Amino acid sequence: MKLDNQTIEQHNRQFVEKHQRAFSYTAENIANAEEILDKLQQFNIAIPSWALGTGGTRFGRFSGKGEPGTLEQKIEDVGLLHALNRSSGAISLHIPWDIPQDAEKVKALASSYGLGFDAVNSNTFQDQPGQEHSYKFGSLHHVDPNVRKQAVDHNIEVIKHGIALGSKALTVWLADGSSFPGQLNFREAFQNTLESLKEIYKHLPDDWKMFVEYKAFEPNFYSTTIADWGQSLLLASKLGDKAYTLVDLGHHLPNANIEQIVSLLLMEGKLGGFHFNDSKYADDDLTAGSIKPYQLFLIFSELVDGMDARGIDHATGLGWMIDASHNLKDPLVDLLQSVEAIKIAYAQALLVDRKALKDAQQQNDVVRAQEILQDVFRTDVRPLVAEARLRQGGALNPVALFNELGIRNSLIEERGSNTVATGL
Amino acid sequence: MKLDNQTIEQHNRQFVEKHQRAFSYTAENIANAEEILDKLQQFNIAIPSWALGTGGTRFGRFSGKGEPGTLEQKIEDVGLLHALNRSSGAISLHIPWDIPQDAEKVKALASSYGLGFDAVNSNTFQDQPGQEHSYKFGSLHHVDPNVRKQAVDHNIEVIKHGIALGSKALTVWLADGSSFPGQLNFREAFQNTLESLKEIYKHLPDDWKMFVEYKAFEPNFYSTTIADWGQSLLLASKLGDKAYTLVDLGHHLPNANIEQIVSLLLMEGKLGGFHFNDSKYADDDLTAGSIKPYQLFLIFSELVDGMDARGIDHATGLGWMIDASHNLKDPLVDLLQSVEAIKIAYAQALLVDRKALKDAQQQNDVVRAQEILQDVFRTDVRPLVAEARLRQGGALNPVALFNELGIRNSLIEERGSNTVATGL
Amino acid sequence: MKLDNQTIEQHNRQFVEKHQRAFSYTAENIANAEEILDKLQQFNIAIPSWALGTGGTRFGRFSGKGEPGTLEQKIEDVGLLHALNRSSGAISLHIPWDIPQDAEKVKALASSYGLGFDAVNSNTFQDQPGQEHSYKFGSLHHVDPNVRKQAVDHNIEVIKHGIALGSKALTVWLADGSSFPGQLNFREAFQNTLESLKEIYKHLPDDWKMFVEYKAFEPNFYSTTIADWGQSLLLASKLGDKAYTLVDLGHHLPNANIEQIVSLLLMEGKLGGFHFNDSKYADDDLTAGSIKPYQLFLIFSELVDGMDARGIDHATGLGWMIDASHNLKDPLVDLLQSVEAIKIAYAQALLVDRKALKDAQQQNDVVRAQEILQDVFRTDVRPLVAEARLRQGGALNPVALFNELGIRNSLIEERGSNTVATGL
Amino acid sequence: MKLDNQTIEQHNRQFVEKHQRAFSYTAENIANAEEILDKLQQFNIAIPSWALGTGGTRFGRFSGKGEPGTLEQKIEDVGLLHALNRSSGAISLHIPWDIPQDAEKVKALASSYGLGFDAVNSNTFQDQPGQEHSYKFGSLHHVDPNVRKQAVDHNIEVIKHGIALGSKALTVWLADGSSFPGQLNFREAFQNTLESLKEIYKHLPDDWKMFVEYKAFEPNFYSTTIADWGQSLLLASKLGDKAYTLVDLGHHLPNANIEQIVSLLLMEGKLGGFHFNDSKYADDDLTAGSIKPYQLFLIFSELVDGMDARGIDHATGLGWMIDASHNLKDPLVDLLQSVEAIKIAYAQALLVDRKALKDAQQQNDVVRAQEILQDVFRTDVRPLVAEARLRQGGALNPVALFNELGIRNSLIEERGSNTVATGL
Repeated sequence: MKLDNQTIEQHNRQFVEKHQRAFSYTAENIANAEEILDKLQQFNIAIPSWALGTGGTRFGRFSGKGEPGTLEQKIEDVGLLHALNRSSGAISLHIPWDIPQDAEKVKALASSYGLGFDAVNSNTFQDQPGQEHSYKFGSLHHVDPNVRKQAVDHNIEVIKHGIALGSKALTVWLADGSSFPGQLNFREAFQNTLESLKEIYKHLPDDWKMFVEYKAFEPNFYSTTIADWGQSLLLASKLGDKAYTLVDLGHHLPNANIEQIVSLLLMEGKLGGFHFNDSKYADDDLTAGSIKPYQLFLIFSELVDGMDARGIDHATGLGWMIDASHNLKDPLVDLLQSVEAIKIAYAQALLVDRKALKDAQQQNDVVRAQEILQDVFRTDVRPLVAEARLRQGGALNPVALFNELGIRNSLIEERGSNTVATGL
Repeated sequence: MKLDNQTIEQHNRQFVEKHQRAFSYTAENIANAEEILDKLQQFNIAIPSWALGTGGTRFGRFSGKGEPGTLEQKIEDVGLLHALNRSSGAISLHIPWDIPQDAEKVKALASSYGLGFDAVNSNTFQDQPGQEHSYKFGSLHHVDPNVRKQAVDHNIEVIKHGIALGSKALTVWLADGSSFPGQLNFREAFQNTLESLKEIYKHLPDDWKMFVEYKAFEPNFYSTTIADWGQSLLLASKLGDKAYTLVDLGHHLPNANIEQIVSLLLMEGKLGGFHFNDSKYADDDLTAGSIKPYQLFLIFSELVDGMDARGIDHATGLGWMIDASHNLKDPLVDLLQSVEAIKIAYAQALLVDRKALKDAQQQNDVVRAQEILQDVFRTDVRPLVAEARLRQGGALNPVALFNELGIRNSLIEERGSNTVATGL
Repeated sequence: MKLDNQTIEQHNRQFVEKHQRAFSYTAENIANAEEILDKLQQFNIAIPSWALGTGGTRFGRFSGKGEPGTLEQKIEDVGLLHALNRSSGAISLHIPWDIPQDAEKVKALASSYGLGFDAVNSNTFQDQPGQEHSYKFGSLHHVDPNVRKQAVDHNIEVIKHGIALGSKALTVWLADGSSFPGQLNFREAFQNTLESLKEIYKHLPDDWKMFVEYKAFEPNFYSTTIADWGQSLLLASKLGDKAYTLVDLGHHLPNANIEQIVSLLLMEGKLGGFHFNDSKYADDDLTAGSIKPYQLFLIFSELVDGMDARGIDHATGLGWMIDASHNLKDPLVDLLQSVEAIKIAYAQALLVDRKALKDAQQQNDVVRAQEILQDVFRTDVRPLVAEARLRQGGALNPVALFNELGIRNSLIEERGSNTVATGL
Repeated sequence: MKLDNQTIEQHNRQFVEKHQRAFSYTAENIANAEEILDKLQQFNIAIPSWALGTGGTRFGRFSGKGEPGTLEQKIEDVGLLHALNRSSGAISLHIPWDIPQDAEKVKALASSYGLGFDAVNSNTFQDQPGQEHSYKFGSLHHVDPNVRKQAVDHNIEVIKHGIALGSKALTVWLADGSSFPGQLNFREAFQNTLESLKEIYKHLPDDWKMFVEYKAFEPNFYSTTIADWGQSLLLASKLGDKAYTLVDLGHHLPNANIEQIVSLLLMEGKLGGFHFNDSKYADDDLTAGSIKPYQLFLIFSELVDGMDARGIDHATGLGWMIDASHNLKDPLVDLLQSVEAIKIAYAQALLVDRKALKDAQQQNDVVRAQEILQDVFRTDVRPLVAEARLRQGGALNPVALFNELGIRNSLIEERGSNTVATGL
């Protein structure tokens, strides 16, 4: 299924008048509205291939219908999202769930939807049928060099697939850890991980990045070998210039100040990528901005400030991706909601008067500093985000159009009710 | 596979001399050692049928081998545990995973292992094949009365199975909740749950109890309809005298003082049952006592004190059960470790000098009160627990005997490598 | 210092044109704008007398200047706030910090600023000079009946002061708890608390309420005797119809779903009062809405929904108060920021389309339910709040006017640099 | 007041027979008992001068009596502790609370009690009378270079005092942070801190260490500029070989795996010092081992393993200190309890069979690894700790002797009831 421009234009006609009024009202208070619109148009958030199906928990999974069963269908799904919101122009593949049999064909298909390929992801947290060694007790940190080698080889394989598709980064997320005191020698686990990553790093093309992800806990429940930003940064520093830390919003201990972490990683030149989701308790993987939208804005405020301080291009300098789970909602609609929330936070961050904020900070004017951020956060910037989308040919109300068109029903018709996407 | 007494006696012979020395040393400092030994012998912790297989997380599962594929094999497994430790004399079934086709035969089989049937558990957090209504959006709290009715009927069915087997309690754990703000009307969800529970309650035999379990989060990530002890107590109070709160150690927010909750529930006459496990981050379902053994002791100290204050029999007054997940260890060995840790905590709680503690409390002698508890906790009571086991014909070192005998290998031979137990 | 209408009008003249444009734009999309404006005008949040000075931590305190040194000056401060925002029309006194020597005079003074007297607060968490018994080990829960009696008598005294001033509620916050395992018998502590509260309750006039506050931890670090809403509700239920639970936003364990608690307390008819502040880590007592503004909105959404379901008047049915600490900011400015954030959340809660939300919930349309709440939250309602303020004669921009007028400097001139307000 | 050997010997006579029996029983199962006893005898934990008085919270303080009012009295107090337990042979001073007027005299006095001087501590989290610039908005991270200079100068002054007394380390704990989003530019705050620390570092003698402490939150409630081990390590690495990270057990986010952090810092050669206390909720500063004794053991297990791996001397290689607050207990008794708990944990860590643990880890034998640690933790090692103390001339039961001798009453007689120690 492919959305044509006419369908979208027709939809927009219902809303455009109201939108124009809102946009005029909003833009008239903003000096650099056009500049912000430009940045919003350039900003894309990659969609991971495993987020297109229904997610679940260890207690089970309530399947949706019409899920994409093949890589081609996953690309189709992301294509639909991108047609609707013009901000989902890349897909992030997961190996071995999405091994492209014919890379050229897959690239061409993606290209027909205006999509590129974001970071490729390896999987050493599950055993695949026929696999020689088990990852039950870890992969890159494993005490057995044979297991480490298998995991290293897998990552090298993933890089090869990525090269074929035009990806420019490898994301390494490791479930490696321990569930009981005594199970691991922490130092040995760290050193093994470092040595394994070095092996993989050797195979990284010059224009690639390696993203070293961290996570506080789950699926291991006592320790994780790359558990926090400090451990990831230590590894990335020892690995070299192409290695970076990747921040996933759900991978922290309770109450962590993520925006500060982001800021310091940018300061060190070591923030590589970002996985968006939201959470209340643990790695809940909920829709971005659905629980703590102010935190999302504060993070974006640090991202914008930190990128600008180093001259990093907002659109291309870091890897942006959604990494959420859709246990209750239609995955595509949920992704549309996440992208919208992210772009709202980004737009608000762009609106921050950096000079005034700096002044307030220099005077320790806490009230004023708080007000500068809150004024922006309380501003309704949805008309800006919508205008950017409109100018690119997207839908003024992507969720409404998705529903109007009965897209899920069309997909069920095409694919059937019982298809299950690979993923968690 | 069934362990005979001779095997166990032979094993004990290796250890008995060393044990006797340790026991004498330990007992000589304890005035009421025999009384404590009696209580330890009477104390049993039920094993849930779903804890006999390998557990997993949403990221996957690394299967063990020789898992019990049928109810009969599950009973056999618990029989093995009970033969080894003499403290696992009951099994807690889960419907529909363990529907007994012929209750009398199943009872006889259990009886042949010295096992009884603990609380029966309903399951309305997963959909079963052929089920009319889905529990995706909850069960007893559901907005649709048809779904509620289906869930109520299922619980009534579970009670019937329980009656046939000689169970005396129904445990209701509900995953019902919401993952996004707005999804639920909290009051309506609570009232629906109350009405549904009332329906089930009507079908409860006079000598039965209903255990209303609570859990802070997971599998829902914004709200749970029975989220804490306050909500459970409110329901249990409105339901009537047969309804009680059930406490699972892993079901609390970070840093909760569980021992205080336990104490107050006992004060209110509303503590019904207890699920043991341990955790560091969330509902990690680790081996009891493996992370916070002092907390386990403090909880037992409150249990003993609170039961004694109300004249509740330790062995029979409350429902005791392990509810852990074994993602990395052999489930049977893990259960042996949990039982051992629980009995150690119980033995220590029995050793607390209640009169001295009361005196210290009356004088606000914080140092002395702390020392009374710490002295007991620092005492090595393993010889007491071992002696109680020995007197009942159990093994002095159950884990060692399990390994010596190659029990898992025997089970693999009997059952095969690829059996998978029902459960999480 | 007293602000006259002219000063405020003059200030408003600078902003009124811009405001009118914003208000028109905002109101045109709202069917019942006038009704919402009415409610906003009626809504007042009490200011506690102890929030008018600089706060501190156990590590110290960096005093501000010109703090109110007497009850009369505290009333003057609240009068200033109310003149600016027209929403701070009540003051909540703390005994013994604010013992009114001449109640009639104090009432007349307050009345001259348009202020009434909110709940009175007792203090049994600190020892006062000359006090017979110490509260080091608690007050209403104390093992010594003499200490309990002293604390009960103090509360009765507080009620008398409240009657003289026209208060209608007593807030009981107890620091009672323990810092080490063993220190307390939890059941006895609970029963002592209950008996003490019963004594106080007897002296409560018929038209008064007793608010039983709870707090998870601090200043005790192992247990608090009234630690959560369940414990508070249990006490309030046993006490009688005039006893209610009071919720302070900062008094919960990490990640607690406060909005659900609020909803259930309203369902049970037992929510009495509310203390506003915000926090990231513990009871941080930061400005309302400064850290988790979406949570504040969600709580208000439940408050509005729950009050409407029981026909409770928004303005008078519950006790609303700010309870924050101002360690870094000017206390008066900080309070203005808190009131603004609270009114924004209230306005947004009033905007929620309850019928549409109900419909979405009945259909388990999670996406729609989320969007209904988010749409409102993303709407800029500041023009509504400002309009309500304007109609009542308040300042369009209270913080700006406070600064323009150099109010703090005037207060310093009046009161001196080294005055220190009583409080924490 | 000074304890003579005779008093202690007399006390020991009551307990020695029972002790000998217990020690024989315990030692007979331990191959290297003498080696462990040696290490226990060499192990000392410094006492901070500010821990000798009653602590408090922002809600108040319930003073004890007979608190040390002068530096000399503080030394006397630590002397008493050391006489009792033979493990408190150093005192850690805090400037400006403990400025030694005559360093030689102070050294001689300390020496007469067998005490040395541990790390000196600077204070830039409070303003001192007459101070030119305020630390309200931070010190080393401050936007104003004058404030930074003042704080740097203070630290240099502290080093000078330390040199005079024979200290070999400076501990820098900074309260610097922010309480509201926007208040700080995180990067600038970090860079300012780094530059300030570099200035101080220049004045560090060659044989000194600088300990950079971190803390998650409090007294600032939104961000702390050195908030976690990653930030501290980053600073220490940039500063140079004499800079190290200092770990305080209470300074982490909920559920942090502190033992893993300790292990990695040792791996990096950057663990400098350790502050002991215990906590349930936040930086509760409770008695070491009073809440999570198993965690304390696990940390010691990593300390021993990590120090041995790098050939670090246990007694002298790292800075060991108690940093607790005594709000309810007699400070001296509380410190005796902390030292005892720490030595128990250390003794248990020394008992771990490292070879067996390594073997279990190499085989991923999770059960066995857990059992190795738990076996040790469940062993009653108090007789070992007591024997070490006895051999050094300490008391078999320090707390009992403290009470028997009525030491606090003697101190009250000497010092009076109303003395208040400087500190928190």
